Amino acid sequence: MRFGLFGGARTKRMAGGPGVGFGDSHGYRDFIAYVVEAERLGLDSVFLVEHHFTGQGQVSASMELLAYLAACTSRIRLGTAVVVLPWHNPVLVAEQAATLDLLSGGRLDLGVGKGYRAAEFAGFCIPPVEAAERFDEAVEVIRKAWSSAGRFSHHGKRWHYENIVVEPEPIQRPHPPLWLAAGSPDSIRRAAREGYNLLLDQLGSIRMTIERVGLFREECERIGRPYHPAMVGATRALQLVHSEAEREAAFAIRAQVLNVIGDLRRGELAPDDVRDDDAPLLGTPEEIIAKLQRLRGGGVENILLVDPRASVANLRTFAAEVMTAFRPQQAAAE
Amino acid sequence: MRFGLFGGARTKRMAGGPGVGFGDSHGYRDFIAYVVEAERLGLDSVFLVEHHFTGQGQVSASMELLAYLAACTSRIRLGTAVVVLPWHNPVLVAEQAATLDLLSGGRLDLGVGKGYRAAEFAGFCIPPVEAAERFDEAVEVIRKAWSSAGRFSHHGKRWHYENIVVEPEPIQRPHPPLWLAAGSPDSIRRAAREGYNLLLDQLGSIRMTIERVGLFREECERIGRPYHPAMVGATRALQLVHSEAEREAAFAIRAQVLNVIGDLRRGELAPDDVRDDDAPLLGTPEEIIAKLQRLRGGGVENILLVDPRASVANLRTFAAEVMTAFRPQQAAAE
Repeated sequence: MRFGLFGGARTKRMAGGPGVGFGDSHGYRDFIAYVVEAERLGLDSVFLVEHHFTGQGQVSASMELLAYLAACTSRIRLGTAVVVLPWHNPVLVAEQAATLDLLSGGRLDLGVGKGYRAAEFAGFCIPPVEAAERFDEAVEVIRKAWSSAGRFSHHGKRWHYENIVVEPEPIQRPHPPLWLAAGSPDSIRRAAREGYNLLLDQLGSIRMTIERVGLFREECERIGRPYHPAMVGATRALQLVHSEAEREAAFAIRAQVLNVIGDLRRGELAPDDVRDDDAPLLGTPEEIIAKLQRLRGGGVENILLVDPRASVANLRTFAAEVMTAFRPQQAAAE
Repeated sequence: MRFGLFGGARTKRMAGGPGVGFGDSHGYRDFIAYVVEAERLGLDSVFLVEHHFTGQGQVSASMELLAYLAACTSRIRLGTAVVVLPWHNPVLVAEQAATLDLLSGGRLDLGVGKGYRAAEFAGFCIPPVEAAERFDEAVEVIRKAWSSAGRFSHHGKRWHYENIVVEPEPIQRPHPPLWLAAGSPDSIRRAAREGYNLLLDQLGSIRMTIERVGLFREECERIGRPYHPAMVGATRALQLVHSEAEREAAFAIRAQVLNVIGDLRRGELAPDDVRDDDAPLLGTPEEIIAKLQRLRGGGVENILLVDPRASVANLRTFAAEVMTAFRPQQAAAE
């Protein structure tokens, strides 16, 4: 069983809005300390979200924050979740990703996506209808950059390069794993066929998550692609509780979180609406262990924790009271 | 008197060329150790070059390497020299630069340029004749991103953004210093008028360098812009020698270096051709001190060292035997 983090740093603006005060870096500092502690506790990976123009201070330059984290850590894998390719020059993405792979000693997991937030398409003045074709061309360029023997050229619909070589070369060969978020059966099978690893959302129930992992595995086996459970990262909200009062508060937070993830088209949820939702790791350590055992039994063995509070204390409790149940060696060491 | 570094890391490819082996990260590791040692020795800044498609393993993602260096250092300023704006989406540059400024605690010096290498224009399929207009539009977008109170839009010739806010905000207000490389009187005066700091090349003689600093200072004073000597960084090759044999070897290296800087249209130079070239800090510590005193006497007080060998040993000797002559406090501490 592998455990990782999924999330990001956030600046908090001074009162008065942009331009009045300057960005508060505490969100970034706290997040860096959180990741360093995660490595110390034995977590295997961190996936950083990347967003633009939110006004909420979300991370926009995820690979730079990961480069900083590469210097602060030595073992934890560093992932993007995701670099939205239609916003980027794909050759620069290939250079930046390879540089990050080099700086981290081969620890990059490159999650890529075609974008889904309407406000970002509007901000970049790119029609959403072009997302898929822009994504496809960018991936084609990135793969060429990392697989061409010698110089190559590319003349596509959006991008043109002549006789170039992308440097540095990444450490991981043939290139860092590419990850894709997918949910529908077709898109999961396509991810398997096209050589991606898979990111699963934090909303799907345990049963649905097990089904999705099964679909991905079957498609890999069908086409002869070697499969390993670490190739699928299942995001799960982490909401540890130690009392019934904390459990009620956790339901309220869960309802809030689901209401805020507006892009996923959730409506107005009340705490009572989320009592039967088994997707989050919400409960006592014993209850969470039981949920994880169900997931593991169904082949879901790479869990990416989403803690709405990014709490170091929560993470320590999780490591001491939950992870140890799945890692006898670690338990013995502690 | 301030001293900094100017240069970059370099990977060395495995025999057989690209695609055969993987990039050797030792060049990057050595360079990182070099910068960390420079900070320890009291140097004030490092400016990183950025190049694409050279086949020589030069740094392509300079802001990522600087983000890594931000985590390894605490005081030294971190500069780009330069980000060639025509290759980049300017809003992403503003985000990346602000993130780097945040991560480094406000230590970014953002050098920008319009590009000069024919091979890079050809590789990106951008006509050199468009360089200036692309540069101007990109700078306009970056300045808007860092100075707009609230959201802004931009609809230019190359770039379109609608109702965006660039996050995070940089730590340095109103924004990190922008640096420009310039050499001709007109371009130096323009840099002064448009609010840039100035990077001077390593080829100009001492007299020419003093004249250029004087021009920049005069133009600042003419328009009422506060001037400080740290606003001009003069790059100088560092070639310390301790014997006449080492001096002859240094001339040979100098001739080689000048021959390699092909973009500057140098012809075939022999060691004898560079004996009277007073631009490099080539000589014994005493001779170099004398050159630096001439520069300082002419108002050139921010020296960026270019060591063709990026040698830690050279840097230590320079710090111990040259810098101490200009920094009595540091000498006392050692």
